[in-house]
Amino acid sequence: MSSNKTPKLAITMGDVAGIGPEIIVGGWPRIVQHNDCVPIVYGNNSVIEKAVTLLGSDCDVQLIDNPVFAKPSKNVIPCLNCASMNAIDVRPGEISHIAGEAAYHAIVTATLHAMLSKADAIVTTPINKKALNLAGCHFPGHTELIASRCGAKNFAMMLYLGPSGNIQGAAGLAVVHVTLHTAMQNIFDEITSENVLAKIRLANDFMLKMKGQPPAIGVCSLNPHAGENGLFGHEEINIITPTVVIAREEGINVSGPFPADTIMLKARNGEFDAVVAMFHDQGHIALKLLGMHQAVNITLGLPIIRTSVAHGTAFDIAWQGKANPASLIEACRVAGVLARNRRESS
Amino acid sequence: MSSNKTPKLAITMGDVAGIGPEIIVGGWPRIVQHNDCVPIVYGNNSVIEKAVTLLGSDCDVQLIDNPVFAKPSKNVIPCLNCASMNAIDVRPGEISHIAGEAAYHAIVTATLHAMLSKADAIVTTPINKKALNLAGCHFPGHTELIASRCGAKNFAMMLYLGPSGNIQGAAGLAVVHVTLHTAMQNIFDEITSENVLAKIRLANDFMLKMKGQPPAIGVCSLNPHAGENGLFGHEEINIITPTVVIAREEGINVSGPFPADTIMLKARNGEFDAVVAMFHDQGHIALKLLGMHQAVNITLGLPIIRTSVAHGTAFDIAWQGKANPASLIEACRVAGVLARNRRESS
Repeated sequence: MSSNKTPKLAITMGDVAGIGPEIIVGGWPRIVQHNDCVPIVYGNNSVIEKAVTLLGSDCDVQLIDNPVFAKPSKNVIPCLNCASMNAIDVRPGEISHIAGEAAYHAIVTATLHAMLSKADAIVTTPINKKALNLAGCHFPGHTELIASRCGAKNFAMMLYLGPSGNIQGAAGLAVVHVTLHTAMQNIFDEITSENVLAKIRLANDFMLKMKGQPPAIGVCSLNPHAGENGLFGHEEINIITPTVVIAREEGINVSGPFPADTIMLKARNGEFDAVVAMFHDQGHIALKLLGMHQAVNITLGLPIIRTSVAHGTAFDIAWQGKANPASLIEACRVAGVLARNRRESS
Repeated sequence: MSSNKTPKLAITMGDVAGIGPEIIVGGWPRIVQHNDCVPIVYGNNSVIEKAVTLLGSDCDVQLIDNPVFAKPSKNVIPCLNCASMNAIDVRPGEISHIAGEAAYHAIVTATLHAMLSKADAIVTTPINKKALNLAGCHFPGHTELIASRCGAKNFAMMLYLGPSGNIQGAAGLAVVHVTLHTAMQNIFDEITSENVLAKIRLANDFMLKMKGQPPAIGVCSLNPHAGENGLFGHEEINIITPTVVIAREEGINVSGPFPADTIMLKARNGEFDAVVAMFHDQGHIALKLLGMHQAVNITLGLPIIRTSVAHGTAFDIAWQGKANPASLIEACRVAGVLARNRRESS
């Protein structure tokens, strides 16, 4: 925990050739307004100033070297310089080791501060994996780098959409995937009772925090029509149904497996607070249709709180003033909720 | 073609224990109003009269024995009796051989009339496969029975959503599946260049009719992130991409493969008129979220025009006056468009 009452959010600048800096500046008034939090940019003040100019924002950048000095307001963006100073030279949309290095330093500093309780949560904007590799950082992605810095081995990514016109549930909708960035041919080995149970528990733990009471969890089937009693596959009968029974015996309010096309309608209508999807597209097709710009990534299983935007660097529109900051605003809101919740329960 | 100018639609009553009869009666005014067509119910007049009473409709049922006598209006439902008379005894929500037999006779009569050009299209309401089996009709489903009666071997199911607030494209959005009612473990053998190409062509032919000009077709990837250059699977590189090239060389305006979560957003926004999905959930999750009640099933590859509602018998709410007729209304509208189109081009 930070020494002050109000949770501090370490927002990393991301790859400077992408839309990170401009969504931070574009979203700033709402990031400050909607949160009883102290948001702080971890990156490079010159890059943030360039984004201020791009967007015609009236914000000043407050250069700080310690989070305790941050005084954010609608017009003041505290920036903790931890990225290479030459990041300002990177051209929009270009993959470069300079941008990769700058992103790397922002991430590791923010993670370190969260581990040391100098910050209460980190919120990340997109990086480019190739740029990170060019900078000599050989992790498959953002999350693995952060987990490694935290010493976490069992972590999982969750997609989250807050309550809105599209999502009827009062605490929003979370989707956890049993398999994610895996070739479809290889998902079957990963759809085990152990893995399904682990994701049910993670979904339950997370939504318990967001909702403040036991959430309703729905589990997707793997096969069309939930396998139609074995006609189109047996994973429902052999793996998923028995696992749901085990989870119910643990006291979790979970049901399924349901056909993935109907469960998403029920979830939208508030029947479920969280859905456990068997593979990438089941969760992503639904969440992108329900709230493309509002979706947030949350990493579960870390000793620190970390949320992230649910989109990429968008090199094709970077530094054109077009990028939508909604996901970042929501990622900050959710990080704030989780940080206050952790503080209250500790 | 029928002998009159206005296309005749043979609407089958479906399983009488389900919602078929009440969606016909509930939707009747809009079925008549929105179509320059002659809708005729194929089934049992007592069952339709029972649905009239249930819904407090002011419709009269006109009993006919030949489609040429049909005089439909907002208040008159022509009914061609071809189902067993004891169908009226079937209890709501119960699987029975009587209901299966009644459904069977309605389907085969409607199909025969379409083959003989006594009707211009058939529109089917839901049946129950078990009831059909109990009646001694051993087909996997509705479509296979109709195809068999028509002597069709190569047919495919397409889901279609008309233009609406959710679908920006002026001709609506069609989704064809390369694999459908197949266990996920078994889809890989079916995702061949031949099958993908066949579905691209079907999607193109169909939307050419609906749009009146060459449509834009998008093809889904199989793997997450379109395989991320082979990192998560090789079907995109080895099968789907080369097949899209072949289809483009045939003059079809097709592109892809695109990640399935982003292609559905593009399709919703009108960038594509049709999407070729690799498996059941890719298409169904999106279409149900975009228009649960408005979706229509269309069988391609038959010598006759056949559309169908995109939902099931809904035994749990049957004969309670709750069923939504939107899908049937839309199925009739689409059948009418296709029938007029075929007439004009013949």
